[in-house]
Amino acid sequence: MTRILVISDGRYTTQLRQECPDLEVHIRPIGQPMAEGIAEVIGRLGIGRLAFEAMAVSVAEFETLRQKLTVELVGVQGRVEALRMIKDPAEIAAIRAAIACAETAFAMLCAGLKADDSEKDVADALEMDLRRCGATAASFAPIVAVGPHSALPHARPSAVTRLGSADFVLIDWGADGAGYKSDLTRVLVTGKVSAQLERVYRCVLAAQERGIAMVRPGVRARDVDAEVRSILEDAGFGHFFSHGTGHGLGLEIHEAPMLRRESEAVLQPGMVVTIEPGVYLPDWGGVRIEDDVLVTPDGHEVLSHVPKVLDAVVVGSRQEQ
Amino acid sequence: MTRILVISDGRYTTQLRQECPDLEVHIRPIGQPMAEGIAEVIGRLGIGRLAFEAMAVSVAEFETLRQKLTVELVGVQGRVEALRMIKDPAEIAAIRAAIACAETAFAMLCAGLKADDSEKDVADALEMDLRRCGATAASFAPIVAVGPHSALPHARPSAVTRLGSADFVLIDWGADGAGYKSDLTRVLVTGKVSAQLERVYRCVLAAQERGIAMVRPGVRARDVDAEVRSILEDAGFGHFFSHGTGHGLGLEIHEAPMLRRESEAVLQPGMVVTIEPGVYLPDWGGVRIEDDVLVTPDGHEVLSHVPKVLDAVVVGSRQEQ
Repeated sequence: MTRILVISDGRYTTQLRQECPDLEVHIRPIGQPMAEGIAEVIGRLGIGRLAFEAMAVSVAEFETLRQKLTVELVGVQGRVEALRMIKDPAEIAAIRAAIACAETAFAMLCAGLKADDSEKDVADALEMDLRRCGATAASFAPIVAVGPHSALPHARPSAVTRLGSADFVLIDWGADGAGYKSDLTRVLVTGKVSAQLERVYRCVLAAQERGIAMVRPGVRARDVDAEVRSILEDAGFGHFFSHGTGHGLGLEIHEAPMLRRESEAVLQPGMVVTIEPGVYLPDWGGVRIEDDVLVTPDGHEVLSHVPKVLDAVVVGSRQEQ
Repeated sequence: MTRILVISDGRYTTQLRQECPDLEVHIRPIGQPMAEGIAEVIGRLGIGRLAFEAMAVSVAEFETLRQKLTVELVGVQGRVEALRMIKDPAEIAAIRAAIACAETAFAMLCAGLKADDSEKDVADALEMDLRRCGATAASFAPIVAVGPHSALPHARPSAVTRLGSADFVLIDWGADGAGYKSDLTRVLVTGKVSAQLERVYRCVLAAQERGIAMVRPGVRARDVDAEVRSILEDAGFGHFFSHGTGHGLGLEIHEAPMLRRESEAVLQPGMVVTIEPGVYLPDWGGVRIEDDVLVTPDGHEVLSHVPKVLDAVVVGSRQEQ
């Protein structure tokens, strides 16, 4: 029989009693470090072997545990991650809600964009729109990257670079709903659609659609990555696709499975993954298109629905307000 | 001579070139895991011993490194933390700016509070006010805890609990400025000042002021904690002060030194620490008062200036809008 026991401290005494009244709890007294709390509990339980999550315990913490404990310590990996990789219906519903929230917030944002908004203005407005739509917060600091800034896949919003200073902006955002998260990326046209933008965008979109089409149970994650990569390579952009094709999402914004070259994962029903190829041309800019995709028993369902057409977006100016 | 080399991946190629043009960089090609990237660089450099930060490397990562590398691995601790513990003038200026930002945002927030604002409304408004004042974001998810909720030191804002439902609200917030952070807590009166609130508040304030008064070079962090704790114990609240007295802050919201019972730290000029005793009475509520304090060569300077008087705050109602 499984016995669950939480070791915590006085900051959480009342919260644990309120939220988890049936849980067995050891509250460390003031001055008792975690390792000593574990030693006390283990001594009481008469345990001989103790497993720990090897990805979540640092070498320093492990050394302290080894000094304080007389039990055998066994590092394990991937057990919680494997449980979390397959979402149950309630988790999928929570991810759907987080996507709906992100999509409504994005529509609100787009309706109010102005040519002289800075990247930071847009990121701040998006954060607030997400919260107005019910999110606890953005699921990560939104990326808002105008023109050349979008050549940095993880660009940080600038308070001086304005939407009107280039022909397009890349926005990567998501909502943190009831614990579960969403993660989307779109490129919006804020000026004219140059031949270069059209060429890069069409190519990334084709790669993304091909990647999505491959998602079904039994397919290796690395094969999705390889297929998406080959399309960009054939177009001469292979060198400019500098990250993996996607990742699982759920309680964390990045979790198992990873869709990249060295991944060992095989897609299974209940996984929710992003498909997000990108092409980043230094000094010119980058295009990334990202959707959230559920693996279903007989294929997939694209959970996100923001349009991917390369239309000129009307961006108002302050004068029109 | 120190040689600095960063191992990164393609997502950061352009950003590294732009922001750190003089830095030696190894960009891992697609499909090369970090451990293999480290192995390649080490092989090229002919290194025999490699130190790593034992607090920042997981047991799983360490095992992978041990398999891939033939060098001797030496875990070290506290070197970066010790450098960061003492702030230079530019860092202190950045913390001052983050405090000023948090204080202005708090004044904006207080001016607009309404009795039927939910905890989440207040947290969302505070996030936006902080950004309007120039913060990148809040330095952590603000705690806004009305009445009994404030008995949870790390309460999460509720969308249904409203300011008008109790006599006071605890707000713990900070700004992330140019990397450096601030961290403050105040209790605002939203109704009448009960005898219990007055008693708890006076006691916490006395303990906090005593703690601040003790801050000077050469004093042990644990002695500040012991003194603050003794004041609350003498008042019969010892059991209800369920955390340490304070912590360093800087690039992270919690960093060295810790001001608590088991701390080995001694205060030194250039440290910036919080002093934040609290008393949490289950089902009634909690009072915490937190300021940011600089250790100066001959004492201390309280960097934060939000008033700590227990006045009745005017909280408007929607009808008055």
